[in-house]
Amino acid sequence: MSAVRSCDPLELVRSSPGLTDYLEAVELRLDSLLGRGGGVIDKAASQTLHAGGKRLRPLLVFLSSPIDRPAPVAAGVAVELVHLASLVHDDLIDGAALRRGAPSTWSAFGKRIAMASGDCLFALAFSELAREGDPGTLEALAEAALALTQGEALQREQLFDPSISVDAQLERCARKTGALFSVACRLGAGDVSSPLGDYGLALGIAFQVVDDILDCVAEAGETGKTPGADLREGITTVPLLLAAERDELVRAALAGGSCAGALERVAASGALARSREIARGYAREACKHLAGHCRAHALEALAQVVVERTR
Amino acid sequence: MSAVRSCDPLELVRSSPGLTDYLEAVELRLDSLLGRGGGVIDKAASQTLHAGGKRLRPLLVFLSSPIDRPAPVAAGVAVELVHLASLVHDDLIDGAALRRGAPSTWSAFGKRIAMASGDCLFALAFSELAREGDPGTLEALAEAALALTQGEALQREQLFDPSISVDAQLERCARKTGALFSVACRLGAGDVSSPLGDYGLALGIAFQVVDDILDCVAEAGETGKTPGADLREGITTVPLLLAAERDELVRAALAGGSCAGALERVAASGALARSREIARGYAREACKHLAGHCRAHALEALAQVVVERTR
Repeated sequence: MSAVRSCDPLELVRSSPGLTDYLEAVELRLDSLLGRGGGVIDKAASQTLHAGGKRLRPLLVFLSSPIDRPAPVAAGVAVELVHLASLVHDDLIDGAALRRGAPSTWSAFGKRIAMASGDCLFALAFSELAREGDPGTLEALAEAALALTQGEALQREQLFDPSISVDAQLERCARKTGALFSVACRLGAGDVSSPLGDYGLALGIAFQVVDDILDCVAEAGETGKTPGADLREGITTVPLLLAAERDELVRAALAGGSCAGALERVAASGALARSREIARGYAREACKHLAGHCRAHALEALAQVVVERTR
Repeated sequence: MSAVRSCDPLELVRSSPGLTDYLEAVELRLDSLLGRGGGVIDKAASQTLHAGGKRLRPLLVFLSSPIDRPAPVAAGVAVELVHLASLVHDDLIDGAALRRGAPSTWSAFGKRIAMASGDCLFALAFSELAREGDPGTLEALAEAALALTQGEALQREQLFDPSISVDAQLERCARKTGALFSVACRLGAGDVSSPLGDYGLALGIAFQVVDDILDCVAEAGETGKTPGADLREGITTVPLLLAAERDELVRAALAGGSCAGALERVAASGALARSREIARGYAREACKHLAGHCRAHALEALAQVVVERTR
């Protein structure tokens, strides 16, 4: 990623010509879909849409698109909708009252509406892509949505089990986050078998590992989450597994024992720095698939932003 | 429906040439999809698939298909999967421990797996249809899935409100059940704007009204449900609204008061018989859209079976 070291990578990503217009078009389209769920579902979906998401997946669609064609708005809308649907359902099941510091959908509208709202966002995603008329893209999106549910299943099977291997954990990251990143890139590229899919997959794994690092250190004010949620709930992650390998107290906490002092031990174990290195490795792996792409510099810069972020 | 009165309508439906083979093909395909959700999701989905569903929506696909072409298996699979996904999520949100007398998905596998399993069945539905390569059918299925969520939203807005009009209630039946019946018929017909869609819509309304009648009278042993669930939960239905119009006690019960003796008052009010008449009216309306269809007799017979069923 040497090409991007000379300037601020976030700036490099943001300055991509046409990006602002594209993201605005995605936002307008997302807004225009809100009238279709009916009454309170619309309100719930509207709150979900305007809850301050980063629109990282539409950004991937845009940056993966060829420079000589308009980036596909429907693809950006569809991948964001699948992502939002999964957040709504996750918060409901996790009983998470807050999302980015604001009330989550279920805590604002009740569980029944949150369930229906998640289903609605999911259906809108497929409806939006169907309108474009390419069944291959629909199949790719459905596969990514399936991968999300596989990630959920793995998470449940691996609960409170510190003996999970880091490789198995990374496989879960691939399904939970990598698959949707990958399909965003492939839909953006306009080719479901584009090598950019491998960029997205590896970048998604890196993103998830960093997310899991941040769960070990974040202040509530920064991410809207209380740190250590994964540890308390027995959810295995790369940093927690690496720390558990070296620290009996962390191991016991991850297996369901007391979490008192465990986050400090995670930090002291060096697991956070080692996890960050793993994430950087995936970011480098991601960038190997960019050869010759017209927006390779921006995609490299994005990989750097993703792995170095601290919130 | 005079043409079918000369023989047993259920027998007439069942004896449609090719039906058994078609439903077997749907079943085989549903089974073959189970390997894709991953571990425990597969087990949960498998239990859902084998919980004794009537496969009414695939039956509609078959009966709506032209006689000179094989009925589309993927369409039958997809509509059944959307239906099953909605049942899994409904049971989770309703806290319903039983479905057809057996443990519901969430009570057997936990809420997290039930959520993921419902999402998985939903994604499989779109994946299955995308494989066939017709975006118009995907958009139609997505619209039907959206209608389900609209039905949920209306149900929530109408909770404990006996002043809801019967017309508004029938509109909810159209979204909750009619839309998916309609799309089953249109996908079967191989034409998303087929008049059979109107048959399916009206039949779905009739089906839902009868379902709501049965909730007022069913024995737990027959449907696997305790009767009166709608009344206790404040869910407005056609028979309950009709009874509430005439009976203060039912009206108070539906508004959240005591349900003691209310079901008997519903029966005594004549609301069940009047609801059955409304359902029959929709069945007749449905059959007006069958002119010239090669399987009109079987579709008429099905309408009769649907409105006259007692379980």
